[in-house]
Amino acid sequence: MHKGGCPTGFVDLIMDYSEFLDSQKSEHLERLKDFVTIASVSTDDAYRPQMKQAAGFVMERCRAAGLEPRLVETARHPAVLARGPECPGKPTVLIYGHYDVQPAEDVELWQSDPFQPEVRDHRMYGRGASDNKGQILAHLNALEALTNCGGIPVNVVVLVEGEEEIGSPNLPALLTAEKEYLKADVAVVSDTSTAVKGYPTIHYSLRGIVIGEVRLRCAARDIHSGVYGGTTENAVRALVQLCARLHDAEQRVTIPGFYDDVLPIQEWEKEHLQRLPFDEKTYLEWIGASQPLGEGGYSTNERRWFRPTLEFNGIYGGYQGQGSKTIVPAQSGVKLSARLVPHQRPEKVMGLLKDWFESQSIAGVELEFCPADEGPPYLFDPRQDKAGFLPAAQQAIVKAFEQEPLLCRHGGAIPIVSRFEDLLQVKTLLMGLGSPDDAIHSYNEKFELDNYFRGMKMSAAFLESVGKL
Amino acid sequence: MHKGGCPTGFVDLIMDYSEFLDSQKSEHLERLKDFVTIASVSTDDAYRPQMKQAAGFVMERCRAAGLEPRLVETARHPAVLARGPECPGKPTVLIYGHYDVQPAEDVELWQSDPFQPEVRDHRMYGRGASDNKGQILAHLNALEALTNCGGIPVNVVVLVEGEEEIGSPNLPALLTAEKEYLKADVAVVSDTSTAVKGYPTIHYSLRGIVIGEVRLRCAARDIHSGVYGGTTENAVRALVQLCARLHDAEQRVTIPGFYDDVLPIQEWEKEHLQRLPFDEKTYLEWIGASQPLGEGGYSTNERRWFRPTLEFNGIYGGYQGQGSKTIVPAQSGVKLSARLVPHQRPEKVMGLLKDWFESQSIAGVELEFCPADEGPPYLFDPRQDKAGFLPAAQQAIVKAFEQEPLLCRHGGAIPIVSRFEDLLQVKTLLMGLGSPDDAIHSYNEKFELDNYFRGMKMSAAFLESVGKL
Repeated sequence: MHKGGCPTGFVDLIMDYSEFLDSQKSEHLERLKDFVTIASVSTDDAYRPQMKQAAGFVMERCRAAGLEPRLVETARHPAVLARGPECPGKPTVLIYGHYDVQPAEDVELWQSDPFQPEVRDHRMYGRGASDNKGQILAHLNALEALTNCGGIPVNVVVLVEGEEEIGSPNLPALLTAEKEYLKADVAVVSDTSTAVKGYPTIHYSLRGIVIGEVRLRCAARDIHSGVYGGTTENAVRALVQLCARLHDAEQRVTIPGFYDDVLPIQEWEKEHLQRLPFDEKTYLEWIGASQPLGEGGYSTNERRWFRPTLEFNGIYGGYQGQGSKTIVPAQSGVKLSARLVPHQRPEKVMGLLKDWFESQSIAGVELEFCPADEGPPYLFDPRQDKAGFLPAAQQAIVKAFEQEPLLCRHGGAIPIVSRFEDLLQVKTLLMGLGSPDDAIHSYNEKFELDNYFRGMKMSAAFLESVGKL
Repeated sequence: MHKGGCPTGFVDLIMDYSEFLDSQKSEHLERLKDFVTIASVSTDDAYRPQMKQAAGFVMERCRAAGLEPRLVETARHPAVLARGPECPGKPTVLIYGHYDVQPAEDVELWQSDPFQPEVRDHRMYGRGASDNKGQILAHLNALEALTNCGGIPVNVVVLVEGEEEIGSPNLPALLTAEKEYLKADVAVVSDTSTAVKGYPTIHYSLRGIVIGEVRLRCAARDIHSGVYGGTTENAVRALVQLCARLHDAEQRVTIPGFYDDVLPIQEWEKEHLQRLPFDEKTYLEWIGASQPLGEGGYSTNERRWFRPTLEFNGIYGGYQGQGSKTIVPAQSGVKLSARLVPHQRPEKVMGLLKDWFESQSIAGVELEFCPADEGPPYLFDPRQDKAGFLPAAQQAIVKAFEQEPLLCRHGGAIPIVSRFEDLLQVKTLLMGLGSPDDAIHSYNEKFELDNYFRGMKMSAAFLESVGKL
């Protein structure tokens, strides 16, 4: 018996982890509820106490899984690092997740309170249930099961950060400082959704991101639109004129050079796209949009996985309260972000955006471009996986989900994946447990409990397979 | 002695009202402070108690002036009506003002609390100090002075409403119901600023207004800009594209027919404009704008007094909080208002706006145009004043301010003035006591105490002059 230590081989496991996991379902459910209850909103400093509480929760789960966790402070929110017992000669798997969540302002739109999780129809509803608490907890539960069933059969190192939703500003420094501790042969990240609902997916590419804000000022103060209206620039008028120039009639971004470094869609990728069981009608119905709209000449999946975008995330200016206020607004602004694809570089695109905005001459307007954050796109060509981690992942998915995984690109940004590559020299397997209708970053976010429970088995089976490589 | 009654003539006044007013300065100052302290914001239902309190304050001032006030309830905020003692054979003067004020959200931008008025440098700072509490209180103080000095020498009827800042929705019904009570030969309204700081002004024209809001919806929910971004319409993108079409490069409104009924500037008006002591540099400095900007081919004063505008009052959509939120917004909207000049008709312009917005085809967008309010422009040609009220007003200003008043148009909207004409068949003299730098509808609103004190004398002198017509 090797409880808490490294087993000499699979045959030594004293109990089947799958049975163990099945026996713990109600505890796993309560555990996820407890995690989601913590309003760990990283972007808003009002939630600092909840951030600490969530980090503490992760520490406790690592201890329960037989790992030795460390709370590592950063300039803003701490990260949890943990290692399992040493398994000499075995590969090391780095498991990454994040305990912070998006804000949940539109409380009135949620069917149940975002931070009082509720199970309805085999789903758990709550902010962060899918992104990323349910997914990282599935891995921690799997590690606990393995530990309870004879031991984790490989070396594992766990990293759960608290700044993913604000762009992981302090993680590069942490990766650099903890490079030896985090040294691994492969990383596993479950922070994505399956490409199609009900089809487990391994993603091999991610979009990068560039985030900024543009602020306009036309006057020292809002002025009465009757007494003075019509004589000086209106900051909202200037802003809509400016923003309207960013896309042409075909929704192409008009900034010169924006598309220069885009890797064209490869032939094998087009074949995969054609085989994909994608129902555009269902996709649009879920979003509640009447029709697909985007860059001319591309399909919906090409637009979200293979093409860069420039989106307005928010706009503001003047009076927004109840009723009316007859002013000429002095200030306005827009929050925007560009999604990048291989081989675009964020620093170059940020520069293009900054140059473009600063070169737009609008009389009477002071303009400030404020870069906020950036992360590079990621590409892991599955045909270049020499060590065999991809087949191990595929096997694990087949075992846990009883079906072959899809191989897809992904539209989201997980900057950490590129940073793992740059700073730790480790490739990442994106084995997302989310469902495309999870409403992450929106109201009524939920997590499919089936993905939660099967995800634990997938995680354990993957570590089992890697242990045999 | 005719205290509380109608004097038989000016010679019967037992004390000079001017001396009386001078003796009451500190009381008048405290009285205005008390009035401004009441946060009577009509647009927001949270301030209902303060609205009642402000109406009560006006009732009390009317009683102190020897009038018999009545609180007249409306569907939203009550109005105060009051009549002085009867003066048979004398003209009746209707004095109008409003006790409601604009919101004051930007509390952090105010040097002192908007509802804790402070006197600095011979000015009183506070929301509503100039618009309109200081101005209407000057008249009520003048009536009190006349009553204390032998009696008011004409018939007066006072109307102080509580819905001016939300477009006086219930006043037309009240005017109709109280038509006999409010019957008057001329109306006096002090709810404007002098055309130029330090130059008392009588305004003979006002701009009208049309207020609306446009709401866009592109999806049922905000979606993740990575996972789904680029595949459906972004409500902010649609909004800026739409709004950017409303003005051409010369800042002319592009809506067909918008300018059709505009009365061209008359020759005598051009002459008056040229004589006006207007310093554009000072004007721009106060606003804090770097240059004059507006409809091509017109001067600043032509733009704000003689030309219609279409202004954005506020814009919203997506995330506006701290930090960033990488969503594609599902909804957005813009609050806007058009300023109208003689002989534009609000119902026609509202129709043009509605038709224009509803005819804009933006794929994937549900658009709703919501009319909010409207008021017609006003024109009183001073060359058609047969009864001689204008010379009486000019005399009163000369007496109180020791200078000749300017004769000007005004850019603001006081819908009540047109309603007086339509519903009560009475012309209005606009004898504003505000200063153009009072920052009404903005932060750090203030009222010049010199205008407050001289305004009381102007009001009393005007009633004195009318009593002799």
